[in-house]
Amino acid sequence: MTFRLLVVGSVALDSVKTPFGEVKDALGGSATYFAVAASYFTDVSMVAVVGEDFPEEYIDFLKNRGIDLSGLTVEKGKTFRWAGCYGYDLNTRDTIETRLNVFENFQPVIPAQLKNCRYVFLANIDPDLQRNVLDQVIKPEFVACDTMNFWIQGKKSSLLETIARVDSIVLNDSECRELAGEPNLIRAARIVSEMGPRIVIIKKGEHGALMLDRNNCFIAPAFPCETVFDPTGAGDSFAGGFMGHLARTGDISPENLRRAIIYGTVMASFCVEEFSLRGIASLTERKIDERFKALKEASHFEFS
Amino acid sequence: MTFRLLVVGSVALDSVKTPFGEVKDALGGSATYFAVAASYFTDVSMVAVVGEDFPEEYIDFLKNRGIDLSGLTVEKGKTFRWAGCYGYDLNTRDTIETRLNVFENFQPVIPAQLKNCRYVFLANIDPDLQRNVLDQVIKPEFVACDTMNFWIQGKKSSLLETIARVDSIVLNDSECRELAGEPNLIRAARIVSEMGPRIVIIKKGEHGALMLDRNNCFIAPAFPCETVFDPTGAGDSFAGGFMGHLARTGDISPENLRRAIIYGTVMASFCVEEFSLRGIASLTERKIDERFKALKEASHFEFS
Repeated sequence: MTFRLLVVGSVALDSVKTPFGEVKDALGGSATYFAVAASYFTDVSMVAVVGEDFPEEYIDFLKNRGIDLSGLTVEKGKTFRWAGCYGYDLNTRDTIETRLNVFENFQPVIPAQLKNCRYVFLANIDPDLQRNVLDQVIKPEFVACDTMNFWIQGKKSSLLETIARVDSIVLNDSECRELAGEPNLIRAARIVSEMGPRIVIIKKGEHGALMLDRNNCFIAPAFPCETVFDPTGAGDSFAGGFMGHLARTGDISPENLRRAIIYGTVMASFCVEEFSLRGIASLTERKIDERFKALKEASHFEFS
Repeated sequence: MTFRLLVVGSVALDSVKTPFGEVKDALGGSATYFAVAASYFTDVSMVAVVGEDFPEEYIDFLKNRGIDLSGLTVEKGKTFRWAGCYGYDLNTRDTIETRLNVFENFQPVIPAQLKNCRYVFLANIDPDLQRNVLDQVIKPEFVACDTMNFWIQGKKSSLLETIARVDSIVLNDSECRELAGEPNLIRAARIVSEMGPRIVIIKKGEHGALMLDRNNCFIAPAFPCETVFDPTGAGDSFAGGFMGHLARTGDISPENLRRAIIYGTVMASFCVEEFSLRGIASLTERKIDERFKALKEASHFEFS
């Protein structure tokens, strides 16, 4: 059985510079990357805020991907803008500018018809707002959240309250180590799991991902990309593929969680191969499944 | 069919300090770690040099592991000594002292009865000496070599001559990038492969390993170690497990190369769990196979 997927997060206009080129005011934001990636798997509803300057063509693009925008509000003022710059190895990112604009006073309101969504993703926003969303939804089946160093350092107690209420948390390796206060990643994941989420997912970029589901550890390979143009949005595309596959199948068994991690890996790999959203803007189910199978083939081995 | 495995490299007395403790003048060296790891798989012969101060108990230990020391010469002078120190995250290593001693004038002589060994590993020594070994052995079936930044920077043309004559090269990620002059690891591996070795193996420490066999890419998981005490020798233990399994089976098919990579991963994981050689000093075939299977279980997934 397939379920609708709800995401609450940011929609932004990104200006990104990498050694391979740059874009200005491109469609970005955590909810955007998540929703576009997830839209290949199931119906997605996005709750977010933009300003009056938000281009109509971006609205059209999201609608054309079948994304429900009934929860997208347009406020007086300007859209959230982020500008960043990547170094030659694409592993270091400098934020050049963050202008929150209308996002500063974002108060997510879940439309009545979406309150009973079974699958919910809380993208990287203030943990107070993440809990505010949890107070509005009615008995979801599976809730996952993201966060970032900014909240781990600045709003830890609120973050811990949020984490205690989710089924799964998606972190990158440095965030996991920082949140747990433990350098060993496996031990750190276990500590985070004891904070509440049964399933801890650690993204390691070009080194793949780890999933800790109680004492069951899944080591997921990364797709060996030969061309990496722009890592922006890779983490949210990963989460979109992961949650998208879970909502599509309505199955959170251990085997299907592993499959979902691989779909997340696949979406992240498409994302980084082109600038901005381009890498995930016009995929097909066939292309996605082909890469899933290529990843299986590349990581497969037998005992004897 | 099982074959004898020949390794040429260093035997050293290591003094290692990590945040978790230290050892002084412990048995170490690339040939030692390699031979001990490989000794669980097949018969191993070691060609190396030690000084008159080399402890009898270490000779006994190696002999008890069934390692043939007919190629180990004892020269006037002291044994090669290395002292190093690891930082808290165990990823950064500072060499405190390197005293080559008798190793400085090492001239490997392959005993007559070992010249027809079918499986040969050239551990990290001067590329001139590596070729010197290749000139002595008779039509080996499979030769792999290791190297390090020191030779990539200081003796590149000699190194390239050696590389052109081996079937496989085992490098860590930074060495591979440096040798190829290319930051993308997959592209770097391809460039190294064009230098000669059909099979390029890249060790990524806690992130696993990659193997490029012509256009076939294998992404190997790392074993999720919760306790890492001392990374010294991990790379040589990896190579020992890899070559040991190949020599044991006499099979260099793509599937068996993958299995060999996993055995390498397993041996490296045992190595880092304890100080010095202790982690691989008293294993059993059963323990090794159990960890192989655990790694398979932890990285297994199905398309649907």
